[in-house]
Parts: sequence; structure tokens; C-alpha cells
Amino acid sequence: MSASAVAPVKIAILGPGTVGTEVVRLLTAQGEDLAARVGAPLTIVGIYVRDTSVERDPVIPRDMLTSDVDALISQADLVIELMGGIEPARTHILQAIASGASVVTANKALLASHGPELYEAADAAGVDLYFEAAVAGAIPIVRPVRESLAGDYIDRILGIVNGTTNYVLDEMTTRGLPYDQVLATAQELGFAEADPTADVEGHDAAAKAAILASLAFHQRVSLDEVFCEGITAITDADVAAATESGHVIKLLAIAERTDAGVAVRVHPALVPHAHPLAGVHGAFNAVFVETRAAGELMFYGQGAGGAPTASAVLGDVVSVARHIASGGKGPRESNYADLPVLPISAASTRFQIRMIVEDRAGVLAAVAEILAAKGISIETVRQHAGSAGPGAAELVISTHRAPERDLESTVEQLRGASAVKDVLSVLRIEGE
Amino acid sequence: MSASAVAPVKIAILGPGTVGTEVVRLLTAQGEDLAARVGAPLTIVGIYVRDTSVERDPVIPRDMLTSDVDALISQADLVIELMGGIEPARTHILQAIASGASVVTANKALLASHGPELYEAADAAGVDLYFEAAVAGAIPIVRPVRESLAGDYIDRILGIVNGTTNYVLDEMTTRGLPYDQVLATAQELGFAEADPTADVEGHDAAAKAAILASLAFHQRVSLDEVFCEGITAITDADVAAATESGHVIKLLAIAERTDAGVAVRVHPALVPHAHPLAGVHGAFNAVFVETRAAGELMFYGQGAGGAPTASAVLGDVVSVARHIASGGKGPRESNYADLPVLPISAASTRFQIRMIVEDRAGVLAAVAEILAAKGISIETVRQHAGSAGPGAAELVISTHRAPERDLESTVEQLRGASAVKDVLSVLRIEGE
Repeated sequence: MSASAVAPVKIAILGPGTVGTEVVRLLTAQGEDLAARVGAPLTIVGIYVRDTSVERDPVIPRDMLTSDVDALISQADLVIELMGGIEPARTHILQAIASGASVVTANKALLASHGPELYEAADAAGVDLYFEAAVAGAIPIVRPVRESLAGDYIDRILGIVNGTTNYVLDEMTTRGLPYDQVLATAQELGFAEADPTADVEGHDAAAKAAILASLAFHQRVSLDEVFCEGITAITDADVAAATESGHVIKLLAIAERTDAGVAVRVHPALVPHAHPLAGVHGAFNAVFVETRAAGELMFYGQGAGGAPTASAVLGDVVSVARHIASGGKGPRESNYADLPVLPISAASTRFQIRMIVEDRAGVLAAVAEILAAKGISIETVRQHAGSAGPGAAELVISTHRAPERDLESTVEQLRGASAVKDVLSVLRIEGE
Repeated sequence: MSASAVAPVKIAILGPGTVGTEVVRLLTAQGEDLAARVGAPLTIVGIYVRDTSVERDPVIPRDMLTSDVDALISQADLVIELMGGIEPARTHILQAIASGASVVTANKALLASHGPELYEAADAAGVDLYFEAAVAGAIPIVRPVRESLAGDYIDRILGIVNGTTNYVLDEMTTRGLPYDQVLATAQELGFAEADPTADVEGHDAAAKAAILASLAFHQRVSLDEVFCEGITAITDADVAAATESGHVIKLLAIAERTDAGVAVRVHPALVPHAHPLAGVHGAFNAVFVETRAAGELMFYGQGAGGAPTASAVLGDVVSVARHIASGGKGPRESNYADLPVLPISAASTRFQIRMIVEDRAGVLAAVAEILAAKGISIETVRQHAGSAGPGAAELVISTHRAPERDLESTVEQLRGASAVKDVLSVLRIEGE
């Protein structure tokens, strides 16, 4: 069957930013290949922009630009939403679905906050809603979790899903530089935005964690159910202490299923050197998945950038276009499960506590007693006399697994103890 | 919609070996979950065995066993083929397709040798043929390459796709033991078969390379077009020399596209320590994919074993069953490309040549001249006087990229040179 003999799949693109421009470039440059793979030609019917007079990359044909989004959507079989943000992206996606078009989006914030509304609309209309690019950029992770692992039980996902924070932590680790300096360089090099809040505070990772948890556990997990702690408090001393104990610090998006329910959280964590995630450097992303039958899996690649994200978008475009051309539909939302989503206080993890104590006999006993009274048992202790100034010592304690709910009050008590001058940091240990 | 209100998807299993037993266990234990994910219950209508009287794992219900394969296949909507080998697996798969059933198989040897016949039959009958478990066991790689990366251009795949050989090479590397001893231990531990030929000679990896190349390059690549060299000649001295030059030896399945065509080959190679594949230990598999838009991706996990392989089979079962229950069909074979498949002589790689030479002035010049005359330029030279006995030295030469076609005659000439006592090994360097 010649691809040119069949009706083309009409594509509308909303938002020709960095990713959109790459999508247009690839759709144009690879037109014949994509037509052969789909079984029908792919035709861009228009590109929505608010202002058609703005100068754009020459790959974007001027005559394809339109500011009439309603007319554009109504002509399309497939709408690629790359505007980002909640509105008007949400309205336009719902509009596309209502008009019978399938949708491909990279909009993690929208999916994490309004996913169910969009999934239900797509399901009711019998169209596809694909979003591989919303999590970990170029890395195929949505499709593997949603389809390849659909016959398995996922127990836990540990993901490095934000390239900016991995770049910053990796530079701090490999070069021994402080946070502020690394962040400033990252901003100069374009690895961090001028306002890095969404990345460094973990909000971006939290949206991805919510999406991954929903897919992995077949139930709805909303963004406000994700505990979120960023990397702004991580010091070069924390990084050095991590190295000394055989760990690296990574910002992890964690989704895990326990007997009590589902826990989803984002926070920096000490990861042992031998863990595959410890070897993920620079702005790369990786998602480590623990399942009952398949065991341990890891998916590694670029988590951001125009071309990598466009690759993920186009993979979805090919799948959806195949359905439009030859019939069929991708998997619908799988949300049959209804496990409780647990608060962070219900989590149980190992901790590394760094503190400055008086350098005298009996101090370790006093500290150990405070922990023991809370049922927290110590696994290792390291003590550096002198490094914390005269008469003081730095004490680094790694605990066995302990309930998170007791931690805050324990740290309060440590701070109040006469032998303890300061609690420098408390970091979770994961991946052991 | 309640899953129990709709017609069940009737499943026939051919071959209840290790993987088949796990598939039955998971289908039974997770019945409700799978029904919710598919939108219809999955029912095993029978399990084909040649001899129903043989004692089996108690998870296999005796009354499901049948030796009447024709009757079993004719009842099924979905046939899971786990017999392995070419015949009668091929006949039964064609029989299933002819009767309108979709097929899930883990049979790499069959796909690599008779894939086109099976794909065409499935396409003509409008049924699915899924085979995630045929390559790299539990690792989702077939679906990502076939679907997630369908909008991208894959330039190269480097895969560790055979767990036995990775285990053997990893043990040789980390423990410094000789090949024979490690292989014997691997056989005792069950990591290698009593007859390890298919693994250690690279035949198993070659079948997977052919399948991956076909998917990546959208064209047919048959097993006999894959160059194949195993690991039986790798010595502990090779491993030590690799370590000294900052490499590890891995058996790689390589599929690459050059301007001249497509090259597919399996051979041991030196991989630099910093490459993500170098960190793949034990019997784990990993597939490293280089694409134009997504850049570098890696997929890591268990490549064999009952439960991991069953996970991949069940992922396919869920996808195919969704199509049976709700309509639609997975991607058909994409074979529109027709690039020449190049012989190994057309490949161009870097080499590390280890030889014993006379320990006297002028020897290096003589060796360099032989290489220069063939247009092969040297990148690094390391020489160890004494280690090769009195009056002799070990010379380790790493070349720049050079055409494979000149290599054999070059090695012949080196062997014939008066200054060269022996050429110990010639290994390709990949992943740089």
C-alpha cells in the first residue's frame, strides 16, 4: 500500500517553542520515513501562535502560523500541545478532544493537576491522549510502564527526572563546589532557568512523580498528594559527607507501594555508589523500576532539550497516527486501584544525621539515648574531632530504617540536648 | 464497565517450561488485576505438552494440560508460544494465525530465521504478533524501539543481550579468573547451560541483533547476515590488558547504520570504563541506543530467567488482549527500508592488538611500518619488557579507526615479521 494513496493525518501544533520547532523540523525532514512508518502521510495543517508577526526559526513556515486556534483545532485529526502551563492548554486540549482529535502533549504540570479530567474526556470521545514527553523527556518510560510492564507488579520507582538538579548535584559532587556557585554556572550554561524555583524546589519532579505513580499503581495520584522537598538546603559539606560514606546525593522522585498504601515523594537522598542511579551524571535522567517479576530495570537518557523531547513527541505522534490511519486506540487510563495515598509521616526510611557536638566523653551515649528512646537504631557512627572547631566534633550518624513521623521531634530533641551544638542536616538514604 | 461482564480472552499456552510455568503462575495470581487492566478476564483454555503424564510444577493445573495442540489452538483468541526452537513452534504459530488468533512469543531463534514469514501471515490475517521477551528478557526494548522511537532515527545500537557471556566476562574482570574456570562455575550456578555453545559462540546474541536491527532500521535483516564471533578465545591476559587500558571486555550485539548501509555484528569488544555499558555486571543485560534526536538512551535489566521473561510475555499479553477485547491492532512489521546489509569487511573500527615481540631497539618501528603500509594509524602503544620472558616484550597497540578488510592480512604480516614472536589477540574497541 502506498502511503500517499491514503488520506493524510492532519496535525495541528500548539506552541512552536524550542520543542515545537524541533517537532516541525523532524516532521518536515523525515516526512517520507514517517509516512512509511504510519501508513499515511502526516500533514501539518497549522501552527498556533498568539502573535503571528514575531520572528521565528526559519524551519517554521510563516504561512502555517495562525492565531485562530479554534479554526485550527477544528481541522485537525491530531493536536500536539506544547504550550505548557495549565491554561489555555487545558481548554485547547479539551476542545481538540471534543472535536474528535487525538492529543499528544508534553505538559506534565497539566497532567499532574488535571489528568483525570483529560483522560475521561479522551475516553468518552474515543480518542488517544499520549504524553511520553511529559516524564523524563526522551526516555521511553510512560509507554514501558503503561504497556510493557502491564502484566507485572511495580513495587517501587526511583527516578532522577529533573536534569537541572542532577546537573547541580553532580557538579557539586565531582568538583566539590558550593550550591550557589554551581547554580550560577548552570544558569549561564542554560542548564538552569533564570528563575530555577520549579526545578530546585522539586515541583517539576513532583509533577512527574504523580504521573509515574498513577501509571505504576493503576490509580489516581494528584500533585498535592506528593511530598516535595528541594535541593536548596544541600551544602558542599553534605556532599562531602555523602562521598565519605560511599554515597552520592540525588534528587529522587519516589513512588512506592507498601502494605499500607502508596507513597509518593520527592526529596534529595543519599544513594549508594554501587546503585545504577549513582552513575547518572550531568543533566541526564534515569528511572529505576523495581517489579515483582521483571526485577530491577533502569531507563536512562536525556530528560530535556528540544530535540530529545521532540523525539518522544514524535514517537507518540506515530502511534496515534497509526490508530487514525488504520483504526485502533491506545490504552485508556488504568485507574481501577484505590489504595490510600500515604502522607510522608507514614514513610519509613534510613537517615543520615550530621551534627556538631561537644568533643567530650559521654556525648555519643547521650545522642544514642535520644534516638533509642524514639525507637531509632543506629547503624553507623563517624566522628571527626577538630573539624568543627576547638572543643567540638562532627558526628555523622546513619540510622536503620525508622518511621518518618518520629524524625522531626527527634531532631528537635537533639537540638535541645546540652551536648549537641547544632544539627547540620538530616538526609534520607534510598536505594539500598 | 465490569471486566467480568464481557467475554473472556481465551489463552492457549504452548510449552510450560520455566517461563511458561511463571506465565501460568502470574496469570492465575494476578487474574483480577489483569482483567481490570485489559477490560476483560483472561482465561487459560489449555496448556500444550507433548506428554501429559510428566510430573510438573503444582502451579500448572493437571486438567489444563493437553497433547492435542490442534484442538487447543482452534479454541484460542491468543496463543503464547514458549516452546523455543524452529519446529514445531513455527508450524503452531502459523496455525494460530490462520485460525485468527494473535500470538505472543519469546522465540528469538524463530523470529531471526523465519520472522518475515510470520509477520506477513499475521498482517494478512489482521492479528497481532508480539515478541518483547525475545530480546533482552524483561527489558522493554522491542516496544520502545518499535513505537517510542518510531519518530526518531536510530544510528546505532550496542547491546549486552546475553546474560551468560556477560556473567563470564564480568567474573573474569572482577576476579581475575581464567575463562574455563569461570564457565565451569557458571554452569554449576545455572548461569550457563551444560552445552554453552549458543551463548559463548554468540549465536543467541546474533539472533537478537538481527531482530533489533530489523526494528531499528525498518528493514529485514536475517540471521545469516549477522557477523558473529564468540568469547571462547578471550583469555585472562586479554582481560587484564583491557583493564590496564581503561576498558572492560563485553560481548556486544551491534547494529549500525552508515552512509554505505547497515552493519550488524556480534563480537567481544573493549568498552571504555566511562561508558554506561561498562557498568553492567553479572548476568544483567543492557541495550544502549544512539539516535539523532533523543541522543543516547540505555535500557537495563534482567535478560533471562523465568519470572523476568514472563513479565515481558505478560506485558505483550495485556496489549494484545486489550486489542482483542476493545478492537485495534499493534504496529505491523515496518520493512519499507532497503539499505544494503554490509559484510564485516566493510566495517571500520578501532583495534587493540596484543603481541609478543623481541625486546630490542627498532622493533616498534618495524611493527609501526607494517601498520602504516596498510593505512592503519596507531593511537597508543604500551610495552612491557620482561613480562613475556627473557629477551621478549609484550606490545599493546591501540589503533585509530581502520577498515576491517585490511585487518586479517595485517595480522598475517605481523605474524610473519621477524621481530614479532606471536600475535596474542586482536580485539575491537567500541563505544568511544
